[in-house]
Amino acid sequence: MSTVEKVSLAQKLSLFQNHWSPRIIGELNDSQIKVVKAQGEFVWHHHTEVDELFLVIKGRLLIKLREDGLERAIALEPGELVVIPKGVEHCPYAEEEVEMVLLEQKGTVNTGNVHDAKTAVEQWI
Amino acid sequence: MSTVEKVSLAQKLSLFQNHWSPRIIGELNDSQIKVVKAQGEFVWHHHTEVDELFLVIKGRLLIKLREDGLERAIALEPGELVVIPKGVEHCPYAEEEVEMVLLEQKGTVNTGNVHDAKTAVEQWI
Repeated sequence: MSTVEKVSLAQKLSLFQNHWSPRIIGELNDSQIKVVKAQGEFVWHHHTEVDELFLVIKGRLLIKLREDGLERAIALEPGELVVIPKGVEHCPYAEEEVEMVLLEQKGTVNTGNVHDAKTAVEQWI
Repeated sequence: MSTVEKVSLAQKLSLFQNHWSPRIIGELNDSQIKVVKAQGEFVWHHHTEVDELFLVIKGRLLIKLREDGLERAIALEPGELVVIPKGVEHCPYAEEEVEMVLLEQKGTVNTGNVHDAKTAVEQWI
């Protein structure tokens, strides 16, 4: 038999506490599925070549966007998702802790074009 | 401003009732995000070239698998997902209605190598 096994989002999220540290929980084709916990402000960045999906599981996530010199924010509640197209400057922010699923292309760096203390190493959980 | 807008899974799922008829709700890179409602048995099939992800939102989904002549089933509850690798024969089944999210490569046909009455046309919602 193969290694086809189901994955529980809640179980994976129970295994770690640190914020802004995405964990890979599966991959398919060129994509990776990650779970991440977050609180506070991330860092303004964009991804030059890849789009990125955020799906909120718990809590409330603001994704601040800068386009054409204007700033706005999209608020995501559980069960809501957004795709941030490549090139769009964004900065996730959470007043209280949020839990979310990310869908990204393999090799995507969480801070995109920026490298700072929040830049994460790729890790499975 | 761009057309970056959030999507609510529940809102999209409220817009249709028919089973085994996936609706595209977003795309990123080479992937499409779909929502689908299902009840009863689908059709045994595989996808020759692409992996496929199922994430259950509501209800209970059985995914029957045939590998090396053996058959087994994976039961998915809300918040659980599975990746079915390319080439693996599978048949989703739901005793009662389930709601789920699919993640597939653009152009993936729901019935894979099989064409029958359940083969769906690509449609956005």
